[in-house]
Amino acid sequence: MLMAKVVGSVVSTQKDLSLVGKKLMIIQPINAEKQEIRFQQVAADTVGAGVGDYVLLTSGSAARHLFKGPSEAVDYAIVGIIDTFDK
Amino acid sequence: MLMAKVVGSVVSTQKDLSLVGKKLMIIQPINAEKQEIRFQQVAADTVGAGVGDYVLLTSGSAARHLFKGPSEAVDYAIVGIIDTFDK
Amino acid sequence: MLMAKVVGSVVSTQKDLSLVGKKLMIIQPINAEKQEIRFQQVAADTVGAGVGDYVLLTSGSAARHLFKGPSEAVDYAIVGIIDTFDK
Amino acid sequence: MLMAKVVGSVVSTQKDLSLVGKKLMIIQPINAEKQEIRFQQVAADTVGAGVGDYVLLTSGSAARHLFKGPSEAVDYAIVGIIDTFDK
Amino acid sequence: MLMAKVVGSVVSTQKDLSLVGKKLMIIQPINAEKQEIRFQQVAADTVGAGVGDYVLLTSGSAARHLFKGPSEAVDYAIVGIIDTFDK
Repeated sequence: MLMAKVVGSVVSTQKDLSLVGKKLMIIQPINAEKQEIRFQQVAADTVGAGVGDYVLLTSGSAARHLFKGPSEAVDYAIVGIIDTFDK
Repeated sequence: MLMAKVVGSVVSTQKDLSLVGKKLMIIQPINAEKQEIRFQQVAADTVGAGVGDYVLLTSGSAARHLFKGPSEAVDYAIVGIIDTFDK
Repeated sequence: MLMAKVVGSVVSTQKDLSLVGKKLMIIQPINAEKQEIRFQQVAADTVGAGVGDYVLLTSGSAARHLFKGPSEAVDYAIVGIIDTFDK
Repeated sequence: MLMAKVVGSVVSTQKDLSLVGKKLMIIQPINAEKQEIRFQQVAADTVGAGVGDYVLLTSGSAARHLFKGPSEAVDYAIVGIIDTFDK
Repeated sequence: MLMAKVVGSVVSTQKDLSLVGKKLMIIQPINAEKQEIRFQQVAADTVGAGVGDYVLLTSGSAARHLFKGPSEAVDYAIVGIIDTFDK
């Protein structure tokens, strides 16, 4: 799972039905020093995360299977809010 | 999901049967500042996106399962048109 | 799907049974300007592509499911020949 | 599988149910010279690894299937402790 | 599939049961000019490859399905030895 910071959200009216009602957050991956790595993506929130939170992201079929529809369009999901980084 | 801008399309006559009838758009991934990231790919459109639109992309088995054939060749699909980036 | 140019092929005698009889082409991913991106890989051809052709590549389970064996080793496949890039 | 060094852990109270009870370790991928490569991620431990250990990581559906729940959020798992690198 | 050179192996005593008895080789991905690309990983050998061999690698679920256990930890496998690169 990537560590990331929630930096915003997107609004999309015209979208796949499976995305209706999902919170689509813009996330910036980070390392344990909270430095930015890689590139921003959009992840479906499953844990009530908000802008500024540090979160755990899962990807691929692990993200897709968190939802119950037959053809979920999600390939990135927020699955935890990070309280502390222990190093 | 990656954020991206639709920058064109490709024409392919000789292709896998599962691609026949699909709109194959060239997309340039971007961050929330609309700066280019990563590299261009081709994605199958599912939401009526056109050149110049900002879109959401899904990848891998999430993209494949959006279509109903037994062996869909798609590994990238456009699943939403982004109206606004809230940061 | 990645855009790519076919730049060669590999010969392999000792290989997984699922690869026997498949054309294994060396491909160089490109962007819509035909500039090289990323890195070369080997993809199984499904559309009769030859060296010099511009092609579409699919990856992961989408590539694997194009073939019918129970344990196909393919994770990259050529699924279309690009006639034109419209930008 | 990536080679990596375990460099810490994260604490997360608010998280997907499938992550409850799993040890979530921060890992830094390395090459065989133990030089850092790529970027840090969080992996679920399955072999009793601790901070400072060199480990093997698996990703994607291979990591997810190591656990038995219907919708496991894990996409990275520690699956071995490396005793020696033979080069 | 990535092209790669086998550069070593790892020894791991404490590991997932599915890895017991598998040869775990350190591989360095290369391009068709045999120049190093990307980063080293560990792949399970399925074709009798040894150090110094040039090989084909498959990844993800294609690698996992080469083995028959219900929860195989492998996400990278050597599936061919390259005899010649034709460019």
